[in-house]
Amino acid sequence: MKIGVLGPRGTYAEIAARTHFKGKGEIVPYPMITDVAKAVARGEVDAGVVPVESLREGSVGETLDVLAWEDVKIQAEIVVPISHALLGVKGAKLEKITQVLSHPQALAQCREFLRKNLSNAELIEMTSTAKAAEQVSKLKQAHMAAIGPKALVQLYELQVLRDEIQAGETNLTRFLCLAKTDAKKTGRDKTSIVFYTATDRPGILYEILGEFASRRINLTKIESRPSKKALGDYLFFIDLEGHREDQKVKEALIGVRKKTAMLKVAGSYPKKF
Amino acid sequence: MKIGVLGPRGTYAEIAARTHFKGKGEIVPYPMITDVAKAVARGEVDAGVVPVESLREGSVGETLDVLAWEDVKIQAEIVVPISHALLGVKGAKLEKITQVLSHPQALAQCREFLRKNLSNAELIEMTSTAKAAEQVSKLKQAHMAAIGPKALVQLYELQVLRDEIQAGETNLTRFLCLAKTDAKKTGRDKTSIVFYTATDRPGILYEILGEFASRRINLTKIESRPSKKALGDYLFFIDLEGHREDQKVKEALIGVRKKTAMLKVAGSYPKKF
Repeated sequence: MKIGVLGPRGTYAEIAARTHFKGKGEIVPYPMITDVAKAVARGEVDAGVVPVESLREGSVGETLDVLAWEDVKIQAEIVVPISHALLGVKGAKLEKITQVLSHPQALAQCREFLRKNLSNAELIEMTSTAKAAEQVSKLKQAHMAAIGPKALVQLYELQVLRDEIQAGETNLTRFLCLAKTDAKKTGRDKTSIVFYTATDRPGILYEILGEFASRRINLTKIESRPSKKALGDYLFFIDLEGHREDQKVKEALIGVRKKTAMLKVAGSYPKKF
Repeated sequence: MKIGVLGPRGTYAEIAARTHFKGKGEIVPYPMITDVAKAVARGEVDAGVVPVESLREGSVGETLDVLAWEDVKIQAEIVVPISHALLGVKGAKLEKITQVLSHPQALAQCREFLRKNLSNAELIEMTSTAKAAEQVSKLKQAHMAAIGPKALVQLYELQVLRDEIQAGETNLTRFLCLAKTDAKKTGRDKTSIVFYTATDRPGILYEILGEFASRRINLTKIESRPSKKALGDYLFFIDLEGHREDQKVKEALIGVRKKTAMLKVAGSYPKKF
């Protein structure tokens, strides 16, 4: 089994894939989320794992676009806690670090730790935590460290200098497992839909939500996103509780279809939170 | 007058600020969106310009958080077309370029141009288009080029090797001008609100939208975003047509306030699109 993930190797998408597939399957990294989805649609990989939402950063626009436009279904959601470690080459010591490399967001999340422990270190911005680890590993300098997930140590032969260095509350990220088909009904499911109204008549969204409210279907997420045609022209993304084969969900979706210009059921899958 | 912007110098936030303030005012760059908002709240700058939404990438989570939690108001929205140019040192020639530096998104948007014109060039990812331009300017190598907004040429003493190299349709980005107060009524206004329901009772969002639908107030945007307390616990962001001093908007907001645990009117400002 092949599993496409948003690369490079060792990022949180790979951790999510390993968690969900219990370490089985061959991981195939792709440079962009759209590439992962297209590989799934073409059958080049059996499943693809991409981030969709972070507690701290919000939704991932590229993944929402993929749900709207690519021929893929959501088969599962995977929730992964994001935690950062300071990683150095073997033999490196925390107090000797003078350069810290990472993605700007990871550097920001670890600002407090850096100020207390490495206030004189130079901070170098990289485009991903994995690229930072790769760089430290390649240059083999004991004064350099990367910030990223602990799992990077195996891939790049590094060691953990300090674990859990991010500030504040836990940061959870939600990933989606994309495949050619969605999941069977379990009795505790969620369904994701995407629609486009093609009218900005006041109240149209209200009427659509009425299809769910009148059937007491709980919505767990709603988001509008520019349709890429013009700013102010929106696609809507809704997550709701229930499986698309549940009688009341079925009826609600028939109602929604009548009120919209485009409706795509992106998939039903077991509810994980 | 001082205007805080999301830095570094020369990024699209600065272009938006210059467009809105017609070149007047001193630009003060800050490393993060939250820093810009806090500087506005403290009175360190008179206004702050931050990105809120891109046609291609969707909403900027950090800006939505700022609207919910920082003591700032939206005074204006500013829409800027994003267009990329290939920038080199003075005397550089397109056909001699062997390294292209830019933000991964800009490199992706210019993939077609690069494949046709610089298929053998090495692509180097930087954390911003401005950092890429700065690097090219610093190293003064005729074989290096950066991709970014044309406006970077003045800041970094570069020249445009080729303009408008991005693929596909226009990409517009919407920026917000934050200040201590919002804008006066013009008759063609928008209002942004943030609220939190503190209940996941099915239909609560439907009831809230009813306050607007029943008064024929058009919503131009709706988005839910994790409240940072737990995944699945959401803040709602709505943009609606009208000024908070319009009678029907006033009445709707009174109705919304009764149904929510927290409501913040982030500001009313002239509608730009």
